[in-house]
Amino acid sequence: MSLTVAVDANGGDHGIRVSIPASLAALRKHPSLSLILCGAEAELRAALAREKAGNLQSRITILNATQTVDSNEPPVQALRGKKNSSMRRAIDMVKEKRADACVSAGNTGALMAMARFVLKTLPGIARPAIFATLPRMGGRVHVLDLGANVESPPELLLQFAVMGAILVRYVEGKPAPTVGLLNIGVEDIKGNETIKQAAELMRASNLNYTGFVEGDAIYTGDVDLVVCDGFVGNVALKTSEGLAQMLNHILREEFRRNFMRKLSALCAMPVMRAVKQRTDHRRYNGATLLGLRGIVIKSHGSADALGFRHAIDQAVREVNNRVPQHIESELRSMLAVGEGEGEASE
Amino acid sequence: MSLTVAVDANGGDHGIRVSIPASLAALRKHPSLSLILCGAEAELRAALAREKAGNLQSRITILNATQTVDSNEPPVQALRGKKNSSMRRAIDMVKEKRADACVSAGNTGALMAMARFVLKTLPGIARPAIFATLPRMGGRVHVLDLGANVESPPELLLQFAVMGAILVRYVEGKPAPTVGLLNIGVEDIKGNETIKQAAELMRASNLNYTGFVEGDAIYTGDVDLVVCDGFVGNVALKTSEGLAQMLNHILREEFRRNFMRKLSALCAMPVMRAVKQRTDHRRYNGATLLGLRGIVIKSHGSADALGFRHAIDQAVREVNNRVPQHIESELRSMLAVGEGEGEASE
Repeated sequence: MSLTVAVDANGGDHGIRVSIPASLAALRKHPSLSLILCGAEAELRAALAREKAGNLQSRITILNATQTVDSNEPPVQALRGKKNSSMRRAIDMVKEKRADACVSAGNTGALMAMARFVLKTLPGIARPAIFATLPRMGGRVHVLDLGANVESPPELLLQFAVMGAILVRYVEGKPAPTVGLLNIGVEDIKGNETIKQAAELMRASNLNYTGFVEGDAIYTGDVDLVVCDGFVGNVALKTSEGLAQMLNHILREEFRRNFMRKLSALCAMPVMRAVKQRTDHRRYNGATLLGLRGIVIKSHGSADALGFRHAIDQAVREVNNRVPQHIESELRSMLAVGEGEGEASE
Repeated sequence: MSLTVAVDANGGDHGIRVSIPASLAALRKHPSLSLILCGAEAELRAALAREKAGNLQSRITILNATQTVDSNEPPVQALRGKKNSSMRRAIDMVKEKRADACVSAGNTGALMAMARFVLKTLPGIARPAIFATLPRMGGRVHVLDLGANVESPPELLLQFAVMGAILVRYVEGKPAPTVGLLNIGVEDIKGNETIKQAAELMRASNLNYTGFVEGDAIYTGDVDLVVCDGFVGNVALKTSEGLAQMLNHILREEFRRNFMRKLSALCAMPVMRAVKQRTDHRRYNGATLLGLRGIVIKSHGSADALGFRHAIDQAVREVNNRVPQHIESELRSMLAVGEGEGEASE
């Protein structure tokens, strides 16, 4: 099946220095993939020549977009003033059905605001959520929401769970993924009212809901999907990033302390490489803005070419597995909602 | 200055197997320290003999407490039904001024409920918070609340900040500790209404408030004190524990994969030991239930004797630095509250 992904070539800390090599790597990996690169045409053409795109160019369309969304630009401002930005044009391609998905490493808030405005949410979904995959002891774990919503009532947490479970089912091939609700204890009495009511809704649903999980269970537990409010999820994710960074820093310091330590670093290198490989955040790059009428993938702003290519891979997987279509068709029965509750009908 | 700490000898996963060796180690470390050990008298005497307490026994008083609070016991049930538990008796010792502080590795919820009921909060403090210290790139960081409160309005977050800053000032010897508010972005527009209002209150206070921090800044930033809601703080802490556990697990697996790897483990051992030493959670054990009319220290339930001794050390530091007295005397001017808002006057 041939498919097309639109790439916001300017987004992220590194812009085309990362998005172009990543795009070419994705084209090499997926023979049925075509790309629409959104950005300043002259710069894109120069970058493609520099990266020796060769005959891969036959699967590339360039869409000239003269504006760039800044990383700290308020979403509302980007939404109003950046209609010809590379980010906006990539989303437009999905809306106009010229692309099956889009990928951006740009400003998350602006991406979410534009994607909601242009694509709208799926019927029955009040607000989209950010879904990502993380390494876990003995496998992978999926978490949402990672920051799209700063306050999530119980009904919204249920919607996150339903959407996340469908994505895990079709993309990861797990027929009945287990779902846990992130809380500050595993007993029923623990947590605030929102979380207790969300638990009741999940128990009453046909999700494979297994109960509350605590923060450590993200990395050491055995549920496939961890559901939480965006504020909590974002803090958990960023805290993890900080801890990993600190441990890495301390490890480097200790391996460089003296000559003997430097020798031991050489000797431990295969182990360090293996650990790095198994926990490499680049392999998990590519978060999904879930709940939209279209596939929008957010790459980490600081991703390198390998990381960005993984974000494109995620877009390809979701297109091939028809994730939004499955969510839309299954939502009605799972949530038992009426028609027209999505944003399109507003 | 001589001081007395009451120890809940039964609390935690390991009970007296950990609390007794830890108590003896603390007595050896602090010559002016006396301990009141609360637990079943016969068992305590047997454990002291087994651990060769010798003449340290002259600084030990045993308080016979026949009940134990279970780790999963609901706080309300423990509060009503466990009046002769080792936990309750240790808190009673503080109330009766027979001890300057108490330490428990038991059920956090029950400890908080009992401590609030017996000791009451300080004037001007609506609810206590859990304060802990963590390793940070290049130093230590202090965080509260780590789970005492599942919902914290802005005024409560301000109280946490004020109390935490006083503790850091007197125990860590930093005259004007920097204070950050945990959020999902550093810009003013980020976060929910609670966090935005809390930021306004902090800016208007005489705290050394430096603005929002994201989760990664806990470990890589440079603020002395990170303030957050108990739900968020607990998830951040537990998530960190899980990530550290997973990384440790992967490292062990890789170092044991084959003969050459095992050799390289030997060679990397000094580095691994140094990293472990620098990040050893046992050295950071001992969270403070802050805001009470008395010092209550919570040890991690799974702490070993070294960890538990660090929790007793923390109690000693807070007694020596007169933390509750400083909070009480400084609170009025910092918070500008009227008298009698604490629980004692209810």
